[in-house]
Amino acid sequence: MELLSQQEVFDGWLRRYRHHSEATSTDMEFAIFLPPAVAAARVPVLYWLSGLTCTDENFCQKAGAFRLAAKLGLAIVCPDTSPRGLDLPDEHDSYDFGSGAGFYVDATEQPWADHYRMYEYVTNELPALIEATLPVSADKSISGHSMGGHGALICALKNPGMYNSVSAFSPIVHPTVVPWGRKAFSGYLGPDEATWAEYDATLLVANAPEPMPIMIDQGSKDDFLDTQLKPELFKAACDAVSHPLQLRMHPGYDHSYYFISTFIDDHLKFHGAALGLKV
Amino acid sequence: MELLSQQEVFDGWLRRYRHHSEATSTDMEFAIFLPPAVAAARVPVLYWLSGLTCTDENFCQKAGAFRLAAKLGLAIVCPDTSPRGLDLPDEHDSYDFGSGAGFYVDATEQPWADHYRMYEYVTNELPALIEATLPVSADKSISGHSMGGHGALICALKNPGMYNSVSAFSPIVHPTVVPWGRKAFSGYLGPDEATWAEYDATLLVANAPEPMPIMIDQGSKDDFLDTQLKPELFKAACDAVSHPLQLRMHPGYDHSYYFISTFIDDHLKFHGAALGLKV
Repeated sequence: MELLSQQEVFDGWLRRYRHHSEATSTDMEFAIFLPPAVAAARVPVLYWLSGLTCTDENFCQKAGAFRLAAKLGLAIVCPDTSPRGLDLPDEHDSYDFGSGAGFYVDATEQPWADHYRMYEYVTNELPALIEATLPVSADKSISGHSMGGHGALICALKNPGMYNSVSAFSPIVHPTVVPWGRKAFSGYLGPDEATWAEYDATLLVANAPEPMPIMIDQGSKDDFLDTQLKPELFKAACDAVSHPLQLRMHPGYDHSYYFISTFIDDHLKFHGAALGLKV
Repeated sequence: MELLSQQEVFDGWLRRYRHHSEATSTDMEFAIFLPPAVAAARVPVLYWLSGLTCTDENFCQKAGAFRLAAKLGLAIVCPDTSPRGLDLPDEHDSYDFGSGAGFYVDATEQPWADHYRMYEYVTNELPALIEATLPVSADKSISGHSMGGHGALICALKNPGMYNSVSAFSPIVHPTVVPWGRKAFSGYLGPDEATWAEYDATLLVANAPEPMPIMIDQGSKDDFLDTQLKPELFKAACDAVSHPLQLRMHPGYDHSYYFISTFIDDHLKFHGAALGLKV
């Protein structure tokens, strides 16, 4: 791993690294916040998956999460949202497909299948790398925003026992039925919609093998609420199988990081408690 | 005033406005955070002056200030750092002069004198406009970063009684002797250095008519510390006249908003107390 930068923040350290990824066959960059507690012991990790057009930097700059993470003793890892540095056909043409829009799936269609393997990267390669090289423990939780909320939900639902807790802000909960998801899954996974189901939280929760509680925050003034997000569909699926879901609707709030910053402390406490930290 | 956007954050509101400015003879944009307390009464205001290359948005997105400002009942106003929309000769050629680099002076040299009047705008026109049209009181304090730290110090030192308190992060304290300041003052004020003195905090403090306490935070790993900032020169000037200065040096911290976010709460409490808020 190549250390790109280190900055002190809240007496901890924000580092950015570059490394070669087997999953994506590209170099990848990620950010990690290490709280001051790493001076004494390994700390648990919250993985944050970002939304469309983001890199590892949006959350770090805008979420206001490091104040409480430093206090709790919680590391936060922010992966990028797609491979970079390629120039595949049409890869950079739209904000909701290709670069910046990996959707946390392992693509099976060409030309994406050799590189767009963000599910493998996020659930397997990156945690193994981080746990082998940085002062963190194997205890981890996962959260994310919008496309990254989708990513957090599917990573947790598909991997019982891997994460201590899962939450999301404004997630895409049912990608197989909304425009963002249908466009992405068509491109990455091909026309056979049967293959899409394994990356759809609303379909996965029906057969979730463990009842891990899920926390979701959603703004009522979110411009994407009725067309792309539709949290009521996920709620109905959870209710049908009595899967524990805390869905909090917030009147007046939109899809932005101002919304995330307002409620991020609640999520950090939720994950901190599940990870055995004193909250 | 034209309302450009409104977003809910920490149960308050971040608004961006555009208005015609008499001071700059251009349209100007600014941001204001209004805490939930405006529902009950007018609230005091902290003016935040940003640094080189910034707009009104950098502080809003990156400082993490709204959490505590909402709790305290403190409005925060973020002006832009220069007039916009002009195309004066060489105006956009460098990051440290012209657009994004107004230096909070009233230019006397052409072609800047008709527009680059950010001192008049920040100390007079903008507060009058805000107090006439928004639910804020006339009680105000001022702070800023780097070039904006210089701005905050000179605005307070030149206007006894106008602000309840003043603070700065990583300020340019002695612009007449450092490259950033000398370039800006040469361009905006001309070759007669005698005219520069009225915008130099280290020179102004020697004759400050009121001993308003000044709080400054400075990172020791700031790349600009030894060449552009030199807080020790301001400290010596304050010590010479027994002007109260709290200069806090922070080992490990740099010039970025990660540094600001780490200590912004201390500044909000400092200003809140001076403005009569319960901190």
